[in-house]
Amino acid sequence: MSLLQISSFAAGNWVAPGEGARIIASAITGAPFATAGNATLDVQAMLDYARTTGGPALRKLTFHDRARMLKALSQELSTHKQALYDLSFETGATQKDHLIDIDGGIGTMFVFASKGRREMPDAQVYLDGDTEQLSRNGTFLGQHICTPLQGVAVHINAFNFPVWGMLEKLAPTLLAGVPAIVKPATNSCYVTELAVRIMLDSGILPAGALQLVSGGLGNMLDHLGCQDVVSFTGSSSTALMLRQTPAILQNSVRFVAEQDSLNASILGPDAVSGTPEFDLFVKEITREMTTKAGQKCTAIRRIIAPDGQVDAVITALSGRLAKITIGDPRAETTRMGALVSNGQKADVLEKAALIGQEAERVFGNPDAFELHGPESGAYVPPMLFHCADPDNAQRIHDTEAFGPLSTLMGYRDLDHAVALANRGQGSLVTSLITHNSDVARDVVMGAAAYNGRIYINDRDSMAESTGHGSPLPHMVHGGPGRAGGGEELGGVRGVKHYMQRTAIQASPRILTEVGSKWVPGAPEIKGPAHPFTRKFGELRLGETLHTASRTITLEDIEHFASFTGDTFYAHMDEDAAARNPFFPGRVAHGYLLLSFAAGLFVEPNEGPVLANTGLDGLRFMKPVVAGDDIKVRLTVKNKTLRNDEYGEVRWHVTLTNQDDEPVAEYKLLTMNAC
Amino acid sequence: MSLLQISSFAAGNWVAPGEGARIIASAITGAPFATAGNATLDVQAMLDYARTTGGPALRKLTFHDRARMLKALSQELSTHKQALYDLSFETGATQKDHLIDIDGGIGTMFVFASKGRREMPDAQVYLDGDTEQLSRNGTFLGQHICTPLQGVAVHINAFNFPVWGMLEKLAPTLLAGVPAIVKPATNSCYVTELAVRIMLDSGILPAGALQLVSGGLGNMLDHLGCQDVVSFTGSSSTALMLRQTPAILQNSVRFVAEQDSLNASILGPDAVSGTPEFDLFVKEITREMTTKAGQKCTAIRRIIAPDGQVDAVITALSGRLAKITIGDPRAETTRMGALVSNGQKADVLEKAALIGQEAERVFGNPDAFELHGPESGAYVPPMLFHCADPDNAQRIHDTEAFGPLSTLMGYRDLDHAVALANRGQGSLVTSLITHNSDVARDVVMGAAAYNGRIYINDRDSMAESTGHGSPLPHMVHGGPGRAGGGEELGGVRGVKHYMQRTAIQASPRILTEVGSKWVPGAPEIKGPAHPFTRKFGELRLGETLHTASRTITLEDIEHFASFTGDTFYAHMDEDAAARNPFFPGRVAHGYLLLSFAAGLFVEPNEGPVLANTGLDGLRFMKPVVAGDDIKVRLTVKNKTLRNDEYGEVRWHVTLTNQDDEPVAEYKLLTMNAC
Repeated sequence: MSLLQISSFAAGNWVAPGEGARIIASAITGAPFATAGNATLDVQAMLDYARTTGGPALRKLTFHDRARMLKALSQELSTHKQALYDLSFETGATQKDHLIDIDGGIGTMFVFASKGRREMPDAQVYLDGDTEQLSRNGTFLGQHICTPLQGVAVHINAFNFPVWGMLEKLAPTLLAGVPAIVKPATNSCYVTELAVRIMLDSGILPAGALQLVSGGLGNMLDHLGCQDVVSFTGSSSTALMLRQTPAILQNSVRFVAEQDSLNASILGPDAVSGTPEFDLFVKEITREMTTKAGQKCTAIRRIIAPDGQVDAVITALSGRLAKITIGDPRAETTRMGALVSNGQKADVLEKAALIGQEAERVFGNPDAFELHGPESGAYVPPMLFHCADPDNAQRIHDTEAFGPLSTLMGYRDLDHAVALANRGQGSLVTSLITHNSDVARDVVMGAAAYNGRIYINDRDSMAESTGHGSPLPHMVHGGPGRAGGGEELGGVRGVKHYMQRTAIQASPRILTEVGSKWVPGAPEIKGPAHPFTRKFGELRLGETLHTASRTITLEDIEHFASFTGDTFYAHMDEDAAARNPFFPGRVAHGYLLLSFAAGLFVEPNEGPVLANTGLDGLRFMKPVVAGDDIKVRLTVKNKTLRNDEYGEVRWHVTLTNQDDEPVAEYKLLTMNAC
Repeated sequence: MSLLQISSFAAGNWVAPGEGARIIASAITGAPFATAGNATLDVQAMLDYARTTGGPALRKLTFHDRARMLKALSQELSTHKQALYDLSFETGATQKDHLIDIDGGIGTMFVFASKGRREMPDAQVYLDGDTEQLSRNGTFLGQHICTPLQGVAVHINAFNFPVWGMLEKLAPTLLAGVPAIVKPATNSCYVTELAVRIMLDSGILPAGALQLVSGGLGNMLDHLGCQDVVSFTGSSSTALMLRQTPAILQNSVRFVAEQDSLNASILGPDAVSGTPEFDLFVKEITREMTTKAGQKCTAIRRIIAPDGQVDAVITALSGRLAKITIGDPRAETTRMGALVSNGQKADVLEKAALIGQEAERVFGNPDAFELHGPESGAYVPPMLFHCADPDNAQRIHDTEAFGPLSTLMGYRDLDHAVALANRGQGSLVTSLITHNSDVARDVVMGAAAYNGRIYINDRDSMAESTGHGSPLPHMVHGGPGRAGGGEELGGVRGVKHYMQRTAIQASPRILTEVGSKWVPGAPEIKGPAHPFTRKFGELRLGETLHTASRTITLEDIEHFASFTGDTFYAHMDEDAAARNPFFPGRVAHGYLLLSFAAGLFVEPNEGPVLANTGLDGLRFMKPVVAGDDIKVRLTVKNKTLRNDEYGEVRWHVTLTNQDDEPVAEYKLLTMNAC
């Protein structure tokens, strides 16, 4: 059988492997299966192509344009899922593993598509936080913005998730407006290559937005500058080497690292044998140990249980692990497939021997286990170790065997549990199984600083919980110290890693132009008609309506009170109201002001305004008493198209009294027809 | 005269300089003035003291406690300002420079005190963003939190701002709850030492929260781990050296660098000679060149003007610079003092010679200028260079002479101006003087990715603008690439650099406990009485009132319309409303629902609720038509004490209809008596 030729995609062309390319074996059989690498890649041309073709094309789009692109890509990948599954078995992964890698990757991209539309503007500038008042009269203000870096993102991925590992980095990168060069780990790069082909063949991406290196990166990192980002997932030793690249250090190139870590799972002191939490704990650990044959950065490497529960945990876990069928991942009965390669198997067994010097193996024997697959494949059984003296052990806290291995240790009290967990010196995730919210709080306070994620589960949440080991697009992924100090995902947070945050200081007029959002103090525009008669597309930022004024009478207040039932003393009782530190006496209801304001600014006839959908940031600034007048200023603040038919208009609304003092301010939301 | 002995404060003790300590000269006279360094410091003991004494003490406090501490410190420093001024002259700084360094530093700390109270909770956990819905039924959710790092912050500061440079790092560090070890540049460490003495003597800080190294750090950085942070300000060469410390690379120690950069100021194409912007440009540049004798990381090193304005700029700038009186900083007539040392002077002149190879010096001669001070002091005149071919020059874009020097270059068009500015390969700040908002937008889109800050000024904002060179506590300070890739300040953003962000996944009940904020889905608590009758301190998170229901009638809708004037068609015209894509027919006003809801939940009698101060995040979720019922659930979401008398209560309010479907949801704010 001829070997699959795994190509790179460089500066617009597919480039086949060169002479003496590396041979990749099937994890299932150990037999040669594909070849990749040694292609003649011009790394400078690839960087130039990304920087001068891909970047400018992506930056011309808005965040919503890019989000739609991501949605289309995820749909395209979804229609080709079966081909990805078929190929992916060769990595040793089971169908269940594919769901994590392939479906999980596509789902991650889809969530970014959705968050891009919902949480980012239909514009090229992302506003980070509110304006900052830098001057007394408000003629000079501050606004933080994020804009795309003008370089390229180099993604260096691990072998274990050839699809998810690419898409979880690619989605935020493209959404930010930055082109990517993806370099998958060679062991499983054939799956990544297929996914890249599907995306490129779809024609959805602008030229230069995505390139692929199958095989080595050459000296690409030596050519990086201040607008580039390296996002690395892999071993801490490789990360340490790459971090020291002179160009990266000299040019302060962003280096986001997500390394393997010694993640822990803690069984709460309350969650003793017999509780739903105990069973949940055993189930989660079994799943984390065996999914992807334990080749997960987030897998549970250290199991921390109360001293009194150690025996029960060993018994329960051993019982569960004994039921795991190991073998050919294509077989439906297989629960755990192969490691990615026999090299990886040798590494895992070597690390297991190291751990074995500090801990006793209480389940699983790599020399004697039932195997439903070829002996030549990269199979190992799940192995559970028990360390009797975890305070005086070091390897169990810093040796990561990247396979189905975990070490159980007992703790005396919760502080001891936290101290043991923190011995990992920075982890991607620690989980805690407890039903006691005090325990949860204590563990969070003690361990959060050492973790990128803390996963807490109990009987209330177990039916819907997402799993200790699953990074979600919504939540940050990464961790301090040994976990690499990087951060990915986390919704818009993950997109910001590919953007520069810049503090803009300027007048309200200039800030309005830069941020596509009207800033109070910027000029008001008088439109040709009442703004409620103008369609979404016609309204301009700053378009303003000033209403007539209305006098608030005591009768109004009393009538409002009796009509609505809101007879709160501040509106009804002069003496009681006057005793209140905020009011001079009886005051108008806040909701009366809102309601009268609407009465002043609405245009009653059928028109483009379809609905008032909400309001934000309402603050009552000064009490209104009987005899006061109110009038309203209504200004188009910003607009977000929602579909072909309508879009959301956000209005800046200010109510002032007869002395032009603001009495209330808020942002009103309406849906307007196009 | 005996020399001032500048001590360190290590592990609770003041330690005098040791044998062979470095002699520090007066900038004014060049004569020996003080001595610092070579003290026998046990760096491991200092780190331990911070980690085991200072850190735990700070972490016991809430953000508000720490904010109050910062306020007290800034008041204490303020009362000792004169002593700081007096000493600070020796660094070559004028009284006006002191305002930036000393008053500016105190003001920065004060802003953090204020932002800590206003923008952070009175709790130990900072919630970063909203909860994330991770499950269909909401039994498992996500929440990002920030908690203090459990290590120590090592602050390595530059010589130019011995007070501001310390306080701008110290304020966010302490607010985060992290102890600091401050290492000022030796040249001006005597001013920092005095400020540290003032703070320590005040007794405001817990033991271990603040230590000082006057002189060298020894091998302290070799002992840092995953919970520590290095925050460095200084030259790019020193930063590069420190970044490569093995412990920093191996342990992913956070390294925040803020380096000198080749900041640019661009004169907009509209801002020709004769406009208010042209004059503003000349004024800002003069100030930036001469303040602190140009020893500012943010000073304007490159002046970028339209080709046609170059001569006018030279003439105008030369005229202004000629009026700068140079001499003894203590003299009231002095406009520019000395560089910090004669070593610094030699360095500046050497760099000036390098720049002189690519640009012509058109103003200022270091060998012939009028000096009102001792010849032995570190004085140089302001020097303006003009580079005729900036595209083919490199030194003007990467040689920073840290003194009163700047290089003017012409641009052909705005793209060229942006390209020149970006040749700095990453800057702290670029300024743009323009009255044209399109110009502003184009420069921001082109240059923001290369800058930590863009400062735009014109006739509208000049009266209140804060200056190109002034980092503000509200806005981020730092920049990509050559500027170091770090970020400081920016309000709460700056505090987060000393905290770990952790994704917490758990049930609503657990999240409520962890975050001190009730999360929908968490248990409701039935209080002993109507919650409006309960004082601030009595109310518990989750305490909930369920109201009776009220039927909305067509008469209600019509009456509300005529009373308020809100006769919008969706409420009044059945056919028009039915044509609307959101409504089945006539619907109740959103403000009617809010008002009736208040009628349902208020307790009318005088009691602890003082006022409704606002509401947030109101969303109308389902239309309410005549005949529908509404009822309200009102739950205590979180509480923030404002002073001894009252505090803010945030209520989660949900309106549901007769089918228990939510029709509106919002957060209500009230002020409640204690």
